Amino acid sequence: MKKQYLMAPGPTTIPEEVLAAESYPIIHHRTPGFKKVLEEVGEGLRYVFQTQRDVYVHASSGTGAMEMAVCNLLSKGDKALVVQGGKFGERWAEICQAYGIEVVSIDIPYGDVVTPSMIGETLKGDTSIKAVYTTHCETSTGVVTDIEGIAEVVRDHSAVLVVDAISGLGAEPLKTDEWGIDVVVAGSQKGLMIPPGLSFISLSEKAWELVKMSDLPKYYLSLMALKESWSKIDTPYTPAVSLIMALQKSLEMIKKEGLENVLSRHARLAQATREGILALDLELFAKRPANNCTAVKVPEGIDGKVIPKRFRDEYGITIAGGQGSMKGKIFRIAHLGYADTFDVVVAISALEMILLDLGCPIELGKGVGAAERVLRLGG
Amino acid sequence: MKKQYLMAPGPTTIPEEVLAAESYPIIHHRTPGFKKVLEEVGEGLRYVFQTQRDVYVHASSGTGAMEMAVCNLLSKGDKALVVQGGKFGERWAEICQAYGIEVVSIDIPYGDVVTPSMIGETLKGDTSIKAVYTTHCETSTGVVTDIEGIAEVVRDHSAVLVVDAISGLGAEPLKTDEWGIDVVVAGSQKGLMIPPGLSFISLSEKAWELVKMSDLPKYYLSLMALKESWSKIDTPYTPAVSLIMALQKSLEMIKKEGLENVLSRHARLAQATREGILALDLELFAKRPANNCTAVKVPEGIDGKVIPKRFRDEYGITIAGGQGSMKGKIFRIAHLGYADTFDVVVAISALEMILLDLGCPIELGKGVGAAERVLRLGG
Repeated sequence: MKKQYLMAPGPTTIPEEVLAAESYPIIHHRTPGFKKVLEEVGEGLRYVFQTQRDVYVHASSGTGAMEMAVCNLLSKGDKALVVQGGKFGERWAEICQAYGIEVVSIDIPYGDVVTPSMIGETLKGDTSIKAVYTTHCETSTGVVTDIEGIAEVVRDHSAVLVVDAISGLGAEPLKTDEWGIDVVVAGSQKGLMIPPGLSFISLSEKAWELVKMSDLPKYYLSLMALKESWSKIDTPYTPAVSLIMALQKSLEMIKKEGLENVLSRHARLAQATREGILALDLELFAKRPANNCTAVKVPEGIDGKVIPKRFRDEYGITIAGGQGSMKGKIFRIAHLGYADTFDVVVAISALEMILLDLGCPIELGKGVGAAERVLRLGG
Repeated sequence: MKKQYLMAPGPTTIPEEVLAAESYPIIHHRTPGFKKVLEEVGEGLRYVFQTQRDVYVHASSGTGAMEMAVCNLLSKGDKALVVQGGKFGERWAEICQAYGIEVVSIDIPYGDVVTPSMIGETLKGDTSIKAVYTTHCETSTGVVTDIEGIAEVVRDHSAVLVVDAISGLGAEPLKTDEWGIDVVVAGSQKGLMIPPGLSFISLSEKAWELVKMSDLPKYYLSLMALKESWSKIDTPYTPAVSLIMALQKSLEMIKKEGLENVLSRHARLAQATREGILALDLELFAKRPANNCTAVKVPEGIDGKVIPKRFRDEYGITIAGGQGSMKGKIFRIAHLGYADTFDVVVAISALEMILLDLGCPIELGKGVGAAERVLRLGG
């Protein structure tokens, strides 16, 4: 017997109440009952996205909504600025290239972070750029991007700012309206605490102007179709009913806890994780570490691929290794969504035992103790 | 948001697979389909009870089966030996008294343990004693009784040996047939990892002889009725169908893990808990500590009632305080049923933080480190 723990940056653990909501009998989607669910979900999403605009729900993984933000905003021959500092920045470039979009790339070394001025300079140098594609939390490196600063810079240009907030939404601050972000894209299996299968997108008026002109081919991913249905509290194609029932419950939980409390919980768990890591004499990989996931450098002399494997096979815990060229060099522990005090304790405890087993000179309990100093409530 | 953890000695955490089995649609109980379930459950229970005899399933809590073991075995004016070293030993005396049975009591100070010779002496001194009522794990004090030794002594007398194994079954060794125990009583919400609501009882031929002669009043608790139905793979009254569906799954899980592995897991978790406790300079309460639950003395100068309250209110963890005269003097952490490595880590971690908050000179991480030395798999 081995209990299983999900501590990779998605899919994340689903709360029991949400699992129960997901297993309600299917409501037919063209009924007043389901319309009521959609209305509630729409309101809850606006709260989490911190926007007055509609947030559309689509039956696809997050990548579907990323593609929407390309094939609906751009037109043949358009040029896009893409920040590439990890696997998910690279995905923006791949999608653009699939549609023949010319990509102007800002390449950031893994673990490093783009600055608003780097984007400002590029936009100044090329006024034909239509859209700036960024990644809120670059989960492949554990970096959080300064979206607020970037939005301030992009605002002075004709280009729209698109943010992939798939893994950051509900874990890191993201003020869609206040910061003036044009397009926010998200997914269901991260901070929203439901299974994979839903994506979300929200657009500013400035972005809708681009959508109206876009001539790239699309059908299932058409934002115009989505918008038209949504205005009648409906969806253009069959929605993923049970996932939406789950979402209704998870949004209710987020509202009950309060978004500010959800975000400060993530900040506290991330800080405790970092303190635990540092107390074990390990190094953080990210220059600007995110609150959804902590990337850690594999210590010298250790085969890094072995660490996530031991977590899973020996202790039943799924964490993430490095992706692409980071394979074996970093590992990543998420504290995302339905995560609490003792999830951090469990992760650091397992890490201590694994590192000692691998021959690292670890004092058992030292990392956990450091995490506990952040986590304890009284004092 | 606060995740909830069940670490009291029952009801214990229910595995996801068992919860799913419990929510299958109800099968009518007089059908071939349900007969097949009962057959499988019967076989699984014999495996866990380590007996070739039938183990009967009854819709009641464990106390119902305890009462069965009194009102079916004894007759008016009979005398019973009862070991009273905690709340559950006292319950045997209360049930006997409710039926007018004369109770010969061996009183054991809380935390202490009865010896086989104490029982042997008493039986030698009074040959009219019909039954000896004992408690496998006296969960109120964290003590495990030497049932093997007691069975060896009782064997030489006409009295039958009755064991309340409600909280010990599946956590502590209990070899019904090999040790020669006459009657074993158990409950569902402990080591069997299902919700409360089922009790179990198994009887030797020697015990059945007493049942045949018993003249105490009973109807719902009649073992004769239960036996007759069970011989036709049936139950005398409507069985708790969904709990039995859950039981089928939990027994399948126990069989898959293997009873020996289940027991050694409990031994490992209990040892790790004890090491964690001792590393924090706390004292164990039980002279012979059980593997299902660890009772800890509240440190000097601390209001003991506050400890379980802080566990629950601040950290979402349900542990148990002391019962009756032990209130405020001990607290009890269970590692019972669906419990694994990190449940111990979580319990000791919370304890460290709480004790520090209460002003105890605790080095955070020290208890967890000591537990980890027992828990880690590699080396």
